[in-house]
Amino acid sequence: MTDAALFLDPGLVRRFAEIVGERHALTDTGDIAPYLIEPRGLWHGRTSLVLRPGSVDEVSRIMRLATETRTPIVPQGGNTGLVGAQVPDEGGGQVVLSLSRLNRIHELDLLSNTVTVEAGVALQTLQEAAANADRLFPLSLAAQGSCQIGGNLSSNAGGTNVLAYGNARDLCLGVEVVLPTGEVFDDLRKLKKDNTGYDLKNLFIGAEGTLGVITAAVLKLFPTPKGREVAFAGLPSAEAALALFGMAADRAGSALTAFELIGQRPYDYTLMHATGAVRPLASDWPWYVLMEISSGRSAEDARGLTEDILGAALEAELAGDAVIAASLAQAEALWNFREVLPEAQKPEGASIKHDISVPVASIPAFIEQAAAAVERVSPGARPVCFGHMGDGNLHYNISRPVDGDDAAFLAQYRTVNDAVHEIVRSFHGSISAEHGIGQLKRNELIATAPPVAIDLMRRLKVAFDPAGIMNPGKVI
Amino acid sequence: MTDAALFLDPGLVRRFAEIVGERHALTDTGDIAPYLIEPRGLWHGRTSLVLRPGSVDEVSRIMRLATETRTPIVPQGGNTGLVGAQVPDEGGGQVVLSLSRLNRIHELDLLSNTVTVEAGVALQTLQEAAANADRLFPLSLAAQGSCQIGGNLSSNAGGTNVLAYGNARDLCLGVEVVLPTGEVFDDLRKLKKDNTGYDLKNLFIGAEGTLGVITAAVLKLFPTPKGREVAFAGLPSAEAALALFGMAADRAGSALTAFELIGQRPYDYTLMHATGAVRPLASDWPWYVLMEISSGRSAEDARGLTEDILGAALEAELAGDAVIAASLAQAEALWNFREVLPEAQKPEGASIKHDISVPVASIPAFIEQAAAAVERVSPGARPVCFGHMGDGNLHYNISRPVDGDDAAFLAQYRTVNDAVHEIVRSFHGSISAEHGIGQLKRNELIATAPPVAIDLMRRLKVAFDPAGIMNPGKVI
Repeated sequence: MTDAALFLDPGLVRRFAEIVGERHALTDTGDIAPYLIEPRGLWHGRTSLVLRPGSVDEVSRIMRLATETRTPIVPQGGNTGLVGAQVPDEGGGQVVLSLSRLNRIHELDLLSNTVTVEAGVALQTLQEAAANADRLFPLSLAAQGSCQIGGNLSSNAGGTNVLAYGNARDLCLGVEVVLPTGEVFDDLRKLKKDNTGYDLKNLFIGAEGTLGVITAAVLKLFPTPKGREVAFAGLPSAEAALALFGMAADRAGSALTAFELIGQRPYDYTLMHATGAVRPLASDWPWYVLMEISSGRSAEDARGLTEDILGAALEAELAGDAVIAASLAQAEALWNFREVLPEAQKPEGASIKHDISVPVASIPAFIEQAAAAVERVSPGARPVCFGHMGDGNLHYNISRPVDGDDAAFLAQYRTVNDAVHEIVRSFHGSISAEHGIGQLKRNELIATAPPVAIDLMRRLKVAFDPAGIMNPGKVI
Repeated sequence: MTDAALFLDPGLVRRFAEIVGERHALTDTGDIAPYLIEPRGLWHGRTSLVLRPGSVDEVSRIMRLATETRTPIVPQGGNTGLVGAQVPDEGGGQVVLSLSRLNRIHELDLLSNTVTVEAGVALQTLQEAAANADRLFPLSLAAQGSCQIGGNLSSNAGGTNVLAYGNARDLCLGVEVVLPTGEVFDDLRKLKKDNTGYDLKNLFIGAEGTLGVITAAVLKLFPTPKGREVAFAGLPSAEAALALFGMAADRAGSALTAFELIGQRPYDYTLMHATGAVRPLASDWPWYVLMEISSGRSAEDARGLTEDILGAALEAELAGDAVIAASLAQAEALWNFREVLPEAQKPEGASIKHDISVPVASIPAFIEQAAAAVERVSPGARPVCFGHMGDGNLHYNISRPVDGDDAAFLAQYRTVNDAVHEIVRSFHGSISAEHGIGQLKRNELIATAPPVAIDLMRRLKVAFDPAGIMNPGKVI
């Protein structure tokens, strides 16, 4: 076993440890290990030191010392990110700064509909605190049990509720950020409107810890919907899904809180491989949609809207079959069916993943052209297409050919990525709709984004982090 | 009459003129005058040259030459801004860059619900183009006939529809910006989700032309509401208005598209001074609310929601009297009553203005404390309070004492501002909720914002505009 502490000067480790106390300065390889294990095992790093500060003041002192000693700092929340942004490099000289102990909910303001939280509060903890106060905090994603608000903001998290409520950026009114110098930028304000200078807040949101450390935030709360319906429909084509989306958005407006597209393959794989998955529809269709309607008025209203939309869809032959969940348990089962899609794909062998967005109207054309492009570069590979159609965001994953070899297929990762992303770019889309850049897409971003944008980002990075100690090697 | 051209080297003027053509390079004092006249006459400037480019390429060439020759550039849209951001300084050496000729609507995408427009399109022109395509572009403000999209974005404009649809920033999906060097940052994308690096778009929005020149944008469109009701209520107190807002937001959700608070004074002044203003309610109240409900479902639905809310408000004694507009003409008359408030205040003599925001829940306490503070520093001065209560944004204007002297009162501008803004700061509010900083509030921003924020803004400014030629003397 490597002695991690060798990578950093012991005197420096002691100085950092003095700030947080010995107990919260982890140097033992076993203690450190969980901070280096990323959920999918795609990213590995090493470190000599994990710091777990208990206050903003401690974060500030850590950053001051880091600047003084030019020590790279890797901020980490729940360690659930998918692009390696929260994982240190292999050199062992980067210090991991865990925000987990900053886990207090400072204030729920039910008149202003805001909540002020520290960065280390788990998303689900916040959802539950809001629910207990009869409010909705709408950010919702698969990792919500362990991901943390600081990470959600640093990665500008998306998820299944973006359609009606926006992503993490849209949900944030104010931030507190510790800068590389240790200075604290305190902008924890509850204002819906503030035009006093440059938009600093949105720079830190989505910066993946490369410009500063988000230590707290003011977030929006919403009224708890009084009625919620979950429906599942089978459709003849992606074009029909687009038309159904338009119809549902038109009739339900902001009551349309989710519109998830599911291809035939992920649907079938879930039925085959996910234990306990219940078949939502009796007949098979090329495409499926999971739709959620949330009414601020009443349960009856949500039901009426949903029936209205599905009735019109069936009559217009946009949908061929549809069900509405008859109970909370059924609604949860339908959502669970959607949530397990990525997991259910695994038994089909190696997979090459994409997290793309295009204009909503371009979704059907993207699906058609991307499938052709994949078939060209990797004949027999199987597109497994699902995602947040209402946001123009697809998780466009490709399983290896049925009889293919995992390693041989994964050797094509870059080729397949390039083919799919080329189609994305032809639609002026994004190669990272919601997961971010981190380490995974850094080289591709730098290689393919307009040079002017890369230049501006580099100027920003240098302006905010001249010593280059904030999460180096990520984003830019 | 001053020969404006004296301020700039004639050779340089010729080089600029060659880019746009003689016809669009204004050097005659008479031709230039309209670009120096700001609506309220508060800001005066001089210039030797107004350039009216007809393409992004021309803007780019202008900026390249400006960088080469260190010539300061002042971008200007409809010239309706209230803080002097669009007006050059008195030196005469700053070139005004008018975006008015970039006035094409490139594309209405009705499936993606986006519109791609050039910076010089007038807001009202865009509203009408959207309406003709059965869509809503919700940004709405008093200057909409002449203000332009580029200026709306550069000032992150607000207005009366922010409550449901957000401000200019929230309505913008992508921008095209010409940088000081002449490079074009082309981010004209229609994406609802894009997590590929730092949020450059939101930096340019609200930067008042100090970081670059916005030349085009992709903006969101919304379904046209199928029903709209405008109601006017009289209330016993600001606390009742806050409670009514909570009740209306809870019952109507995002169908609550406006919630405007009007104090007794502005109400009375409008009845006294605005020609054609019709008394909305028979009896007098300390406070009034103009509320708009827009339903995506039907006219009946909007009516039902409005009646439901007002009925509950009257029963709970939050409102003492209320009317719902019985016709489109009546609805327009009620909105007109709200729109003319600033104008109707003028006959009451000199006025000291504020554009503040606080957390919504703090509105009643702010009103009480601000009135006391004003009375302390300027006894007899009359707070004229109205604004976008749902956004926590008040236009808190102070008319001079009834028998006071205009000049003597205006001599107290700074003292009164300071007293009001001190209360704003005690509520962690904003001293510029929607109008921006420009020249008007630059010194105060620099003096009172946290030094860390000012330092970050200065670093941004230097990183993006190292030569300091973009609208110098504004914002920071």
